[in-house]
Amino acid sequence: MNRNDPGNAIAEAAKAFSNWGRWGEGDVLGTLNFLDAAKRREGAALVREGVSFSLAQSFDMAGPQQGWRRRTNPVHTMLETGTDAALGNQGFPHGFGGADDMIAMPLQCSTQWDGLGHIFDHGKAWNGRPAEEVVTSAGDLVTGIEHMAPHVAGRGVLLDVGRVVGGPDAELPDGFAITEEHLVATADAHRVTVGRGDIVIVRTGQLTRARREGWGEYAGGASPGLSFTTAGWLHRTEIAAVATDTWGFEVRPNEFENAFQPLHQVAIPNMGLLIGEMWDPDALAAHCSRDGVYEFWLTAAPLPVTGAVGSPVNPIAVK
Amino acid sequence: MNRNDPGNAIAEAAKAFSNWGRWGEGDVLGTLNFLDAAKRREGAALVREGVSFSLAQSFDMAGPQQGWRRRTNPVHTMLETGTDAALGNQGFPHGFGGADDMIAMPLQCSTQWDGLGHIFDHGKAWNGRPAEEVVTSAGDLVTGIEHMAPHVAGRGVLLDVGRVVGGPDAELPDGFAITEEHLVATADAHRVTVGRGDIVIVRTGQLTRARREGWGEYAGGASPGLSFTTAGWLHRTEIAAVATDTWGFEVRPNEFENAFQPLHQVAIPNMGLLIGEMWDPDALAAHCSRDGVYEFWLTAAPLPVTGAVGSPVNPIAVK
Amino acid sequence: MNRNDPGNAIAEAAKAFSNWGRWGEGDVLGTLNFLDAAKRREGAALVREGVSFSLAQSFDMAGPQQGWRRRTNPVHTMLETGTDAALGNQGFPHGFGGADDMIAMPLQCSTQWDGLGHIFDHGKAWNGRPAEEVVTSAGDLVTGIEHMAPHVAGRGVLLDVGRVVGGPDAELPDGFAITEEHLVATADAHRVTVGRGDIVIVRTGQLTRARREGWGEYAGGASPGLSFTTAGWLHRTEIAAVATDTWGFEVRPNEFENAFQPLHQVAIPNMGLLIGEMWDPDALAAHCSRDGVYEFWLTAAPLPVTGAVGSPVNPIAVK
Amino acid sequence: MNRNDPGNAIAEAAKAFSNWGRWGEGDVLGTLNFLDAAKRREGAALVREGVSFSLAQSFDMAGPQQGWRRRTNPVHTMLETGTDAALGNQGFPHGFGGADDMIAMPLQCSTQWDGLGHIFDHGKAWNGRPAEEVVTSAGDLVTGIEHMAPHVAGRGVLLDVGRVVGGPDAELPDGFAITEEHLVATADAHRVTVGRGDIVIVRTGQLTRARREGWGEYAGGASPGLSFTTAGWLHRTEIAAVATDTWGFEVRPNEFENAFQPLHQVAIPNMGLLIGEMWDPDALAAHCSRDGVYEFWLTAAPLPVTGAVGSPVNPIAVK
Repeated sequence: MNRNDPGNAIAEAAKAFSNWGRWGEGDVLGTLNFLDAAKRREGAALVREGVSFSLAQSFDMAGPQQGWRRRTNPVHTMLETGTDAALGNQGFPHGFGGADDMIAMPLQCSTQWDGLGHIFDHGKAWNGRPAEEVVTSAGDLVTGIEHMAPHVAGRGVLLDVGRVVGGPDAELPDGFAITEEHLVATADAHRVTVGRGDIVIVRTGQLTRARREGWGEYAGGASPGLSFTTAGWLHRTEIAAVATDTWGFEVRPNEFENAFQPLHQVAIPNMGLLIGEMWDPDALAAHCSRDGVYEFWLTAAPLPVTGAVGSPVNPIAVK
Repeated sequence: MNRNDPGNAIAEAAKAFSNWGRWGEGDVLGTLNFLDAAKRREGAALVREGVSFSLAQSFDMAGPQQGWRRRTNPVHTMLETGTDAALGNQGFPHGFGGADDMIAMPLQCSTQWDGLGHIFDHGKAWNGRPAEEVVTSAGDLVTGIEHMAPHVAGRGVLLDVGRVVGGPDAELPDGFAITEEHLVATADAHRVTVGRGDIVIVRTGQLTRARREGWGEYAGGASPGLSFTTAGWLHRTEIAAVATDTWGFEVRPNEFENAFQPLHQVAIPNMGLLIGEMWDPDALAAHCSRDGVYEFWLTAAPLPVTGAVGSPVNPIAVK
Repeated sequence: MNRNDPGNAIAEAAKAFSNWGRWGEGDVLGTLNFLDAAKRREGAALVREGVSFSLAQSFDMAGPQQGWRRRTNPVHTMLETGTDAALGNQGFPHGFGGADDMIAMPLQCSTQWDGLGHIFDHGKAWNGRPAEEVVTSAGDLVTGIEHMAPHVAGRGVLLDVGRVVGGPDAELPDGFAITEEHLVATADAHRVTVGRGDIVIVRTGQLTRARREGWGEYAGGASPGLSFTTAGWLHRTEIAAVATDTWGFEVRPNEFENAFQPLHQVAIPNMGLLIGEMWDPDALAAHCSRDGVYEFWLTAAPLPVTGAVGSPVNPIAVK
Repeated sequence: MNRNDPGNAIAEAAKAFSNWGRWGEGDVLGTLNFLDAAKRREGAALVREGVSFSLAQSFDMAGPQQGWRRRTNPVHTMLETGTDAALGNQGFPHGFGGADDMIAMPLQCSTQWDGLGHIFDHGKAWNGRPAEEVVTSAGDLVTGIEHMAPHVAGRGVLLDVGRVVGGPDAELPDGFAITEEHLVATADAHRVTVGRGDIVIVRTGQLTRARREGWGEYAGGASPGLSFTTAGWLHRTEIAAVATDTWGFEVRPNEFENAFQPLHQVAIPNMGLLIGEMWDPDALAAHCSRDGVYEFWLTAAPLPVTGAVGSPVNPIAVK
């Protein structure tokens, strides 16, 4: 990787790790195609104790967003309340009262999946389609997140790189680039394998730190994350999806002098990889470190918002 | 049940089927307490084929809402698009382009869970708490849906009443009240049991009809649904949750002359029952009718919107 | 006008009535340039009685929108309420209480100005600029409505065509195309002149009818409005702006077999004309019909939403 | 004023300066009643040059909000764009293209009027009404801002206290409490009178400073503003409305050790005074300092959002 030539580095990786055409011209699922029925049976067999974990951050104004590219934290408002009900303001008979609410939020505001229409490479969306024909103001007309609605359930693997590679606090410092060597060493330490169809969660510990110290002016600031050089590993392992506990999945600042999220540019439009961001693996990670088991059943179902290029999600791991 | 005296009928059922105090004064989960680790192990063991189904409607402007109590369909808008990326309007280097989006929606607009703070009975919320102290303009301060985030994963049972009790089209007519007898007969026909900790999905077929004929001016109009008289069955079976494919869960118009959602008034604040609405069980139901197996592993994880009285959800069934 | 050849009719009118370059290459105001200080002095001198009128419809769920192109009615929600304040839920000292609220609305949902970036002709925006460089997902980067913020105050003229040309109910039927002859006859009947820099309000009476009979499934349905043939009059009179009491300004259905808002296509991107829609002139019109004076001081200040292609507005007429 | 006894100070001022009942039990306008036809004629006569000024800040993400009480800056999004039009993605015939947009914003986010339902005193809203009956989750059922829609047009007076009392930069320091003496001295320096029915704009210069130095983490932080002790002047002068160029109208931090916006508590629910915040008087102030004329015609029309407790506004001054 030539740090001074991001354009060529991205182009080479994009070509080397492209999955265009692999699942036919009409494909709308990308690497989710790797997650098949056999993998689901394998995943379900991992439920031994019956304990379940949410891997979602809370959706509220305490989130990390600061307004960059109009990404705000979710705004939750009430349409009807218990105070109104108690005061008899609602007009229902026989003591009936109700509360309703609504939300306005960027779909990229908190724990999320990046859809296949989220990133483009030189005007091309996933599978080589012209970006301008895929995602218009009317949404993603081809690869909208709704196509993934029934599929994201299978075997999950946690790679707690923060715990294995980080210090005693189990956190990686901001700017730390996780390489293939770190991923492999972590899997080895966990005695877990990673392969075709798996949903891999990489814990850096940055969220743990943010929860302790506050987000500050974070969103998009420095954080640990995957190195651009992991593109080959992401491709070769044939995993179905990968998620981190950080805003941006890949290391921030990015490893090139002048680039923006170069691993996204390779992974989403070229590889067709489903990427999760801002997940909260901490409760699960604590359990895994206790029992030494880093594989589990995972359901991470996006809301089927028609034409969305991403979705908030509450991933549920069951061991 | 005296159809002319809804006030007393509701009060009697509320008293008879109350679970107040059953799980302690501080409880925030209601009947979800019935869903334990053993039930999750039982549910996971039902994954035999590895096939998965989304039970969510699509979230878009084609939904059933008409503005009643300010409930609109979800409004999805783009913050960045592929057309901008293709035209080089975004200012990123090296051919990087991106699309972002946002949503504004009532949390009760489509496939959803009703949280415990959604309905009150004579100013009382779940577990006997004063409604005005539980749900203010700041949201549900006590029983917000975020408390349920890790829990809703277990054994699901489909009761396809439309198929068993309805005509050859497998649909119940609008206004049809599903009684305990119908539920029991359906379970018998399916050779499936319903018990403590299960998540029960009742299919009426009304969504099938709406999909074919359009919603018209539906939201809140006539539909099949559970009879008020099923309150005892809902309580006695100790199920963790129940969902239907209709807007309002219970039969519409309601069975009393002058009442509004009386079964909600008993089930949510008094029984602490988790209720799902506007689910789409049709793809799952078709599979169940083919293989004759009406039980499965079900994950239906609400988005943990802090203080929400409900949540959109993409329930995933795996068989 | 050849009703069977809308393409050529639009192209001819666009060429004949173009104001491209009239106010320089950098112009962002279009016909608002006609509204100068002298015109403001003339307008202010029309305040004789001191009575003021709002020409805005109410902004609420009772509006005409039905979801076409995701245009909904405004959704107003409370962030804090008096019920909370009364119950002491807010945490302020010394008896202080407060209510806050928010709104989510398309800028085209109710009484509005169409900005210069609202309509394009063959990919060209106002003054001949490429549409794709003017209005991106980031908004109107060149002619955003904020540029008009200080300017829209001057002499207003009401042409109550409904009263002069319509029946005893002072309403024009749906589908009625108002021609130049109707406009001139109305001005004559009102003994009022229309000229350079004026803001002209054309009343059809359709809103009066909708208020009486309900909107039904209106938005975009049949209504009276300006004929395509008035383009020359709109250009020749050098008015600064024109507004109607209808959803679409021009007659609906449009006068060509296969066209969509052809007068918009001529007037906004080619003529640079500021167009108002869904105004409510009824209270003002009643006063004008009583005192026979159809000119007045008019302020119709758009909200300076940066980059907006339109704006809700509460126009105030003072006589 | 006893700084250590805010409760009594507020109660005494509330009683001394109450206008409850002054305009009848059904009143919904408060001090706007002072703005009559004669005042509008007087105001219109002030248009001498014909030059107009917008007193609104721009509505965008660069505003001062930081999320306090869920107040965000306005979020403006596009529903249709010129890039889509240029690429032929819209489906209209004959080269027609269009752009639409929407906004989500707290009504208190930027240049605004506080409605009469915005603040309560010990559970009482304007005119002594119970807060819980006036402002519910359905909005302000009695004194919604829509009632003010036609009225806010009359004589405006600028009191540029920053210029008269501040240093050479014409700015008051944060925490500076403007007293009656400052207001009177400023009016004297401007050779302008303030009286019944006027709309008074007090410029502190804080916005000038924020524009130069950025908002930082402002919203609600320290700023100049009116002293609690001006309540008597506000009442005695019988002005119709008053606005400042600051977030909070009154001096921040407030003058009592433990209080929150005590002048609001007196002025809105007790006096019925219309208060404007976050106005931008700078362009107008520069003109006034040049020609020495500090009075003008002012239109500041709230959007008639039904039931709103406030409204964004683009005030237009014409001299």
